[in-house]
Amino acid sequence: MIAETPVPPYYAVIFTSLRSEVDAGYAAVAERMMALAAEQPGFLGVESAREGLGITVSYWSDLEAVRRWKAQAEHREAQRMGRERWYSRYRVRIARVEREYGA
Amino acid sequence: MIAETPVPPYYAVIFTSLRSEVDAGYAAVAERMMALAAEQPGFLGVESAREGLGITVSYWSDLEAVRRWKAQAEHREAQRMGRERWYSRYRVRIARVEREYGA
Repeated sequence: MIAETPVPPYYAVIFTSLRSEVDAGYAAVAERMMALAAEQPGFLGVESAREGLGITVSYWSDLEAVRRWKAQAEHREAQRMGRERWYSRYRVRIARVEREYGA
Repeated sequence: MIAETPVPPYYAVIFTSLRSEVDAGYAAVAERMMALAAEQPGFLGVESAREGLGITVSYWSDLEAVRRWKAQAEHREAQRMGRERWYSRYRVRIARVEREYGA
């Protein structure tokens, strides 16, 4: 779904990734991380699609909320497993949303 | 592919969309827009995936490059067709990338 975000400014974390050939554990942890993110203070929404390349954009109220989510204990463990097992390459970009429009 | 972007700051245009049931003309114009974007001054790269929800993130050197691309004549016509025919909903977010890391 398209996230219902507030009037900018707010923050976007753009996570792009290519999967490795290791599947074990991935789907459950990915699903858990989406649910866990949604419980965090400052979480505004998330959008995700994979078509070879995976793109997940999560939206946050401010940079402090982004930092807290990166440092959240269960999420840190998931990040470690992602680096070691599930992703052959990934990129995280932290961006300040300045303008939004659409229909 | 994961875009090879320079050291921040630079800009990201996050385009999220849901398709209508109209297919006529869509694939060719979408492909043409990816090629045309890549020719524009200030273009840094693009990442795209669709899995129900479509997410396309294009990267630009500065806000002026983003504005020029939005105003590019052939792109404006594609935007109009997108609004009228191909997308049931869409959202455009313009964001300043402040930090990037990955592996």
